[in-house]
Amino acid sequence: MSTSKQLPQPDRGEIRVDAVLQALGEPVRLIIVRALADVPEGIACGELDLPVTASTRAHHLRTLRESGVLTTRTEGTRRISSLRREDLDALYPGLLDGVLAAEQ
Amino acid sequence: MSTSKQLPQPDRGEIRVDAVLQALGEPVRLIIVRALADVPEGIACGELDLPVTASTRAHHLRTLRESGVLTTRTEGTRRISSLRREDLDALYPGLLDGVLAAEQ
Repeated sequence: MSTSKQLPQPDRGEIRVDAVLQALGEPVRLIIVRALADVPEGIACGELDLPVTASTRAHHLRTLRESGVLTTRTEGTRRISSLRREDLDALYPGLLDGVLAAEQ
Repeated sequence: MSTSKQLPQPDRGEIRVDAVLQALGEPVRLIIVRALADVPEGIACGELDLPVTASTRAHHLRTLRESGVLTTRTEGTRRISSLRREDLDALYPGLLDGVLAAEQ
């Protein structure tokens, strides 16, 4: 029997736009966000091909999670992350779409 | 006869979303952006009431200008800044509106 557990994250009402913008404003974190945008059910981010070390990857994922951009659940030894698109679209309509539309 | 001069800024094609997000992701800079959003013709930002020193204010304005968020022109001894809304809306549709919609 497998259990799923959500890692700590802010409730919707605790999310702050400056923290979200700061989290999004970093090239590797934008790669992660773009990848997650294509897979609503979530990705094991350890499987993403990123140009950083494992510890840097973990740092970026934590920054994104703690700011409210993504949610992470554990499934056995895997950590599956997905965008909190519903929360972000409700709080900041258009922001995420605008970011994802960016060519550079 | 007064002359108006635009301070250095990136062309639209040089603006990068990570730099824009980083520039926006700071509380004092968000105060500036919200104030400018209400006044399309621009504001002499020295006149804004901000909880920072003059040099910090200048630093924030430069960060916003160099990232492409605002444009600044000199008029005599005054510096008038305004949002580059048309450029940002063209590059990242919805981003600025989403940020301005934020309650926190």
